Amino acid sequence: MGRLTGGDPSLLRRINSAVVLHALRGADFATLTEVTRVTGLSRPTVEGVVEGLIEAGLVVETAAEEGAARRQGRPARRFRFRAEAGHLLGLEIGPHRVAAVLSDLDGRVLGTAARDVDETAPADERIERLRTAVADLLRRGGIARSSLRAVGVGSPGIVEADGTVRLGTALPEWTGLQLGERLRRSFKCPVLVENDANAAAVAEHWKGAATECDDVVFVLAGLSPGAGALIGGRLHRGYGGAAGEIGALHLLGRDVTPETLLSTTDEPLHPLDEQAVAEVFAHAREGDERARQAVERFIQRLVHDVAALVLALDPELVVVGGWAAGLDGVLEPLRRELARYCLRPPRVALSVLGEAAVATGALRLALDHVEEQLFAVEGTVTARR
Amino acid sequence: MGRLTGGDPSLLRRINSAVVLHALRGADFATLTEVTRVTGLSRPTVEGVVEGLIEAGLVVETAAEEGAARRQGRPARRFRFRAEAGHLLGLEIGPHRVAAVLSDLDGRVLGTAARDVDETAPADERIERLRTAVADLLRRGGIARSSLRAVGVGSPGIVEADGTVRLGTALPEWTGLQLGERLRRSFKCPVLVENDANAAAVAEHWKGAATECDDVVFVLAGLSPGAGALIGGRLHRGYGGAAGEIGALHLLGRDVTPETLLSTTDEPLHPLDEQAVAEVFAHAREGDERARQAVERFIQRLVHDVAALVLALDPELVVVGGWAAGLDGVLEPLRRELARYCLRPPRVALSVLGEAAVATGALRLALDHVEEQLFAVEGTVTARR
Repeated sequence: MGRLTGGDPSLLRRINSAVVLHALRGADFATLTEVTRVTGLSRPTVEGVVEGLIEAGLVVETAAEEGAARRQGRPARRFRFRAEAGHLLGLEIGPHRVAAVLSDLDGRVLGTAARDVDETAPADERIERLRTAVADLLRRGGIARSSLRAVGVGSPGIVEADGTVRLGTALPEWTGLQLGERLRRSFKCPVLVENDANAAAVAEHWKGAATECDDVVFVLAGLSPGAGALIGGRLHRGYGGAAGEIGALHLLGRDVTPETLLSTTDEPLHPLDEQAVAEVFAHAREGDERARQAVERFIQRLVHDVAALVLALDPELVVVGGWAAGLDGVLEPLRRELARYCLRPPRVALSVLGEAAVATGALRLALDHVEEQLFAVEGTVTARR
Repeated sequence: MGRLTGGDPSLLRRINSAVVLHALRGADFATLTEVTRVTGLSRPTVEGVVEGLIEAGLVVETAAEEGAARRQGRPARRFRFRAEAGHLLGLEIGPHRVAAVLSDLDGRVLGTAARDVDETAPADERIERLRTAVADLLRRGGIARSSLRAVGVGSPGIVEADGTVRLGTALPEWTGLQLGERLRRSFKCPVLVENDANAAAVAEHWKGAATECDDVVFVLAGLSPGAGALIGGRLHRGYGGAAGEIGALHLLGRDVTPETLLSTTDEPLHPLDEQAVAEVFAHAREGDERARQAVERFIQRLVHDVAALVLALDPELVVVGGWAAGLDGVLEPLRRELARYCLRPPRVALSVLGEAAVATGALRLALDHVEEQLFAVEGTVTARR
């Protein structure tokens, strides 16, 4: 039972510090008077907190010329949040590609890097490719590794809280891989590993197709479709981190697999051969009857999987991403069939972020982590059974 | 941006009142000294609050003989929470039965009542049956209708926040019914209408098979299966209140319906004819091959629906309820097949509450509503983007 009696002085200092930092981050340049007004704190408290933040390197007094255009009358000291005081990385590990995106503490993207990787590459090689991409990105940006405050990682598979891949059939040697621990050797800051579809859902909510929606399912369409869901704006991971792994309905079950559905020969496609998939879609568009039927079968299955997710979760919006090619042909049948299967059909939209979605979401998760430490102080007073 | 500055005196009074009431409710009989110790409030504050609660009828000074067994040394005034100061109802509206359960403000059940109703009965008749059951229950318990503080209702269908049934194919004339408004005519207190599977999930979490789990899916098995989910202990209704309506995957889609699957003739069963379903299950147990095959087909479908829910949500536990007869035969195949389909198979348990689940959950929702008003005061101090 929390109480409002007394109060913990160090908690109060943290709250005041977070509030001042938050106010400074919201403004480009602020005077102490402005911070006092916005925060409701006393002038001496604000002065003390700002001094502490300057010592911590998170706030700086702006040079005269920086604030010049904004000054009216007598010059007052102005301060700003130092977004450059630290950096964040968002990493993606995929079957064909590894990618990295670098940002400052405001989440402003400073650069990206990517490397191709073979779908059959062993885990060591895949991780090494990622390390190379990161080293290149930091070097090009002139950013010291020590300035990294958090690293987010999006990976296929069911990922446990410590970053271990509990199950990852999409990549060679992925099941059981201690991915978080492996990557922590390269960084001194926290490394947060998240399922790729979950990361993509977070990204579309941050700056993609779902910025206006808090109840979203992101479907990472592919031969083994996965999904990530936000409920009330928060990632729904499930009890064991396995929520949204709807592709298992057919992968583990008794039905024919998507690789067989999409094949135009008697041989199934390779589960990771997206090039072959793109070709089937292209042939279908050109009028090839066998390809058209294959795509039809595949879409029917995808619709069924997405309908199952929608009926279970009832989201406001479904965002479809994952394949650069062919997805535009999926959207209309998906809308039509969801209207048929679902009691309350959701809106359906294409991913806005495309192949950047997973790394962008990983970056947002890193940013969330840092913001929790720097900016957010939550206290709850509750009296409940 | 909430702040800890100053403080609202009326909020503080509410917090203190809730804290004292909470402490008194947790103890059978408490002295002012005990309340002062437990709450951390000052003696004069506790005295003032207790006087106010006595005036409001929520607290009473216990008679000497009531507290006698517990007294040590010099007698001190003792007080207790008056759970009898108000009453709550949990109502169930089903295809074959309407039911009501009555409790005091502690949620202690004082009585139940039920009425059979024909599956073809129009909405007016169904609601009238429920009214009769409630009147009978109140009369038998000697409880004045005016002492009701809240009424919870569990009903099939997708229910909107105001208690209107947006879609309810299970009962005649149910879609579009303003059920909340209709029932509010009979009660002066708040009436909260909830989907029946959602209510059952809440009930099993309160006092059934899921008391130890906060991530639960309750499957209301039937010819049109529905489901309710708790995520982190809270009901997940979905954006439009339609979460968990997994039966629609086949009802609205292109697959053969469960009524046809379970039929041992060429005619489908009536969707609400549970007696016919029970007979098919009984024949299967007696070795009838055609019935055995029908049950096999039906279980396969149920497993598929539950697997879809489990893959989407990843609960810790699945509780199966809804049919008194035949369900025990469903459990083992369900466990076996979920282990096959799901990446992280959940535990599977039978409903503990059986046919009392929906009304019990409705009662809990009424109790939650009253507790929010009486006992819970939540304040959040947040500084966030």
